[in-house]
Amino acid sequence: MNDTTPTELEAVLDAAAQAAPALAASAPRVRAEALVAAADALDGAADELVPIAMRETGLAEARLRGELKRTTVQLRLFAETVVDGAYLDVRIDDADPDFVLGPRPEVRRYLVPLGPVLNFAASNFPFAFSVAGGDSAAALAAGSPVVVKAHEGHPELSQRTAEIVATALVAAGLPEGTFGIVFGRDSGITALRDPRIAAAAFTGSTGGGVALAAIAANRPVPIPFFGELGSVNPVFVTPAAAEAGLGPLAEAFVASVSGSAGQLCTKSGFLFVPRGADLPVAAPAAGVAPHRLLHAGIADGFRDRRERILSTDGVETVAGGDVTDDEAGAWATPTIARTDVATLRREREALLDEAFGPLAIVVDYDDPADLPGLVDEFFPGNLTGTIQTAPGEDPAGFTDLAAAIAAHSGRVIVNGWPTGVAVTPAMTHGGPFPATVGGAGTSVGTAAISRFLRPVTYQNAPDGILPPPLRDDNPWGVPQRRSSAGESASWGQLAASAGATGGGAA
Amino acid sequence: MNDTTPTELEAVLDAAAQAAPALAASAPRVRAEALVAAADALDGAADELVPIAMRETGLAEARLRGELKRTTVQLRLFAETVVDGAYLDVRIDDADPDFVLGPRPEVRRYLVPLGPVLNFAASNFPFAFSVAGGDSAAALAAGSPVVVKAHEGHPELSQRTAEIVATALVAAGLPEGTFGIVFGRDSGITALRDPRIAAAAFTGSTGGGVALAAIAANRPVPIPFFGELGSVNPVFVTPAAAEAGLGPLAEAFVASVSGSAGQLCTKSGFLFVPRGADLPVAAPAAGVAPHRLLHAGIADGFRDRRERILSTDGVETVAGGDVTDDEAGAWATPTIARTDVATLRREREALLDEAFGPLAIVVDYDDPADLPGLVDEFFPGNLTGTIQTAPGEDPAGFTDLAAAIAAHSGRVIVNGWPTGVAVTPAMTHGGPFPATVGGAGTSVGTAAISRFLRPVTYQNAPDGILPPPLRDDNPWGVPQRRSSAGESASWGQLAASAGATGGGAA
Repeated sequence: MNDTTPTELEAVLDAAAQAAPALAASAPRVRAEALVAAADALDGAADELVPIAMRETGLAEARLRGELKRTTVQLRLFAETVVDGAYLDVRIDDADPDFVLGPRPEVRRYLVPLGPVLNFAASNFPFAFSVAGGDSAAALAAGSPVVVKAHEGHPELSQRTAEIVATALVAAGLPEGTFGIVFGRDSGITALRDPRIAAAAFTGSTGGGVALAAIAANRPVPIPFFGELGSVNPVFVTPAAAEAGLGPLAEAFVASVSGSAGQLCTKSGFLFVPRGADLPVAAPAAGVAPHRLLHAGIADGFRDRRERILSTDGVETVAGGDVTDDEAGAWATPTIARTDVATLRREREALLDEAFGPLAIVVDYDDPADLPGLVDEFFPGNLTGTIQTAPGEDPAGFTDLAAAIAAHSGRVIVNGWPTGVAVTPAMTHGGPFPATVGGAGTSVGTAAISRFLRPVTYQNAPDGILPPPLRDDNPWGVPQRRSSAGESASWGQLAASAGATGGGAA
Repeated sequence: MNDTTPTELEAVLDAAAQAAPALAASAPRVRAEALVAAADALDGAADELVPIAMRETGLAEARLRGELKRTTVQLRLFAETVVDGAYLDVRIDDADPDFVLGPRPEVRRYLVPLGPVLNFAASNFPFAFSVAGGDSAAALAAGSPVVVKAHEGHPELSQRTAEIVATALVAAGLPEGTFGIVFGRDSGITALRDPRIAAAAFTGSTGGGVALAAIAANRPVPIPFFGELGSVNPVFVTPAAAEAGLGPLAEAFVASVSGSAGQLCTKSGFLFVPRGADLPVAAPAAGVAPHRLLHAGIADGFRDRRERILSTDGVETVAGGDVTDDEAGAWATPTIARTDVATLRREREALLDEAFGPLAIVVDYDDPADLPGLVDEFFPGNLTGTIQTAPGEDPAGFTDLAAAIAAHSGRVIVNGWPTGVAVTPAMTHGGPFPATVGGAGTSVGTAAISRFLRPVTYQNAPDGILPPPLRDDNPWGVPQRRSSAGESASWGQLAASAGATGGGAA
């Protein structure tokens, strides 16, 4: 794909801006049906799209077919979210002429879309975090036009996916310009600075995300920037789990580290075990076939990180792995290193950064009571943290560890692996910086829609100008939370001491 | 008040960081009772605090007593919000072994506090947007310690308010360090850069807010910054309203412009009327007694803006007003200018910026059909926009105008005035930049709590480590939204086309 020209970029941005008002005002069923139409079209094009993706990314067919299915299920789930309408967070407060702070007018509030969203696609999920991925689905569901900045790792797939999605959305009744795509680094940066772009989303490296976030923050009109960046997803094995034997866990660990060649933001990068625990990873690691890395930049970065880690004093190689080249690119097998807490502390600069690829570090610890402090010390911001326990183990032994993980990440996992992110209402795929920048929300699951919305209140407005979800006849059938005059929401005795709850002069 | 020394600042920040985990884990009733205790203590100290506020700000006693009452009602309302628990947005998705994308684990999610919040207090509301104001109340309710950067306009009041609040919170069982205060510009900036501060809130000028937002965004670890900045709150009078006679409206307009000497972020800065409409503002303006301006900086800024506006070609002075000095400070009476749309367009640089003080500009328009476009052109981001109609007027005539206001502000008002912000669940006090920076949420009303929260998901976690709101026995009695295995949330036919809704590999 050639880079988008300035003239083409202007057309895409103009079309998105033109589409925004009609899209924002579109009825939920129209938007939902369009999302389903896009999902149907992508499912129908699987036999065309998956081979392109295999060629451009080196990912395996089964993984890519699964990822495409996940992507279309995600579009359907957002269609349901739109129709359900709870995401609009409608609140209606009746007027109260006798309010303690003076007469209170009627106010009605819901959430409206921010406007055109620029979505910087990721390389490692060419479907699920790319053109038609979670950020695009969430923004479209919110009622915002989407401009995708394609990742250079899979340009042909990006172009075809965008054509299929844009065609399906328009055929289903959404405005022209609802969905656009641009190619090239400069196009992305120019678009990020453009006043017609109201928010941006990004999935990628910490360096890239921080640089783009700064551009978004330092515009004449700053805009929200939601970046999902780096994460090393530590896993902690309790002494009881180690005593019960780590054979099956070692196999599952190697599978989590090497799946998709470890090119996942949820790969387990560190596994903490009691000192000297027998963790038989060499055999399962040796059984993993070479997997192609996504592109040359990732291969170079992985080689550098791998070499630096393995050459650090106090680090032992327990499963060698390698990286070899052929005409198709670089191929990697899993590398597992082992060290201890003291070395990690001394060599944190060499060891702590994410190694994007099939590599993980096993760390020996001495006292399980130290683990919560180690989370504070080494893992300030991650997508996930995991605890591996023995069957039936008393949770009292790892309650503090769970609390430390919750304080520094978006997901606490017990006896599972961070790879595999369920797309559901309760999922969080986010966490404190550097897991995310620009708000530690979620980029997976239906809660992701909230990032692209802002509240608007109507005060004393006649039915004729109220948007449908705020009207008493509620034509969209959305949930409306109502506060009556004089009502004290929930805790009478508190309200009583103030006379009532609510308004006042400002 | 002397500026906080580096040693004192270190102690305040350290105490806040130490308090954070216990405060985050505190039971809702404990936190709610502490908020009520703070409100009771402030109400009890009214006779001490109000005279200090009068001396330091020049605001009138009745206004300040009302503002203090509003502040304590706000604390009580947040206490109810905490106990109600809906703000935690608890979601529980049951495990689904038969999920279309593969077995899905149980996930449970709620919102947790971000950690210590730095609150830059405003000058113009020494109670309601200052030490114990809305941002502090919302952050405390969320479970975050608060460090207030006092405004230099009312230092003694700030110190006493902080002592009263901190003492009440600790006496009610919250950890020492839950509430701190610092003085001086350098202290505020140092605190904003400190890694122990997890988020910041600000109410003040656009220039100040933009500069602080940039500091927050460009830290090694960027943090959310919620700034409520400038707004000019345009008001649009329909032709039918003008035909019905504008005598009462002129009086109400002058009252909205001159109350608290116009030093409100919701002051009506522009009033659009049909060309030549008779708007008798001179008499009511002449009847307004001089009001002291808050401090010398505001007085200087107001003089400059007033002079520039009145000396602009094409601008007529319809109510002169003035600014005079005595030993207590600068005193102002209301100034009303009048111009037309063509002049506003030609002189936008001179006329469009906020004039913080008792001044407003009446603008003659020719065609009501132009009004939505004028909102787009002149008022890209405001807290509010208002429409004044005739009794019983058909809303069809101002539907497009209302939509344009909603697209560019956080509150659409009909037949009211933007001054007077009800503290209720449905209120929005925010809007697109420059009304706010760092997320167009709200800083008034119970929805303000959401700014200081982030989601955490527990996957496959035993009861023993689940936080109380996520447990099946639900000891805090909070609302829990549950998705069962195989359940399609709301729109069966969409789910049917995908087989089901939900998870998958990531």
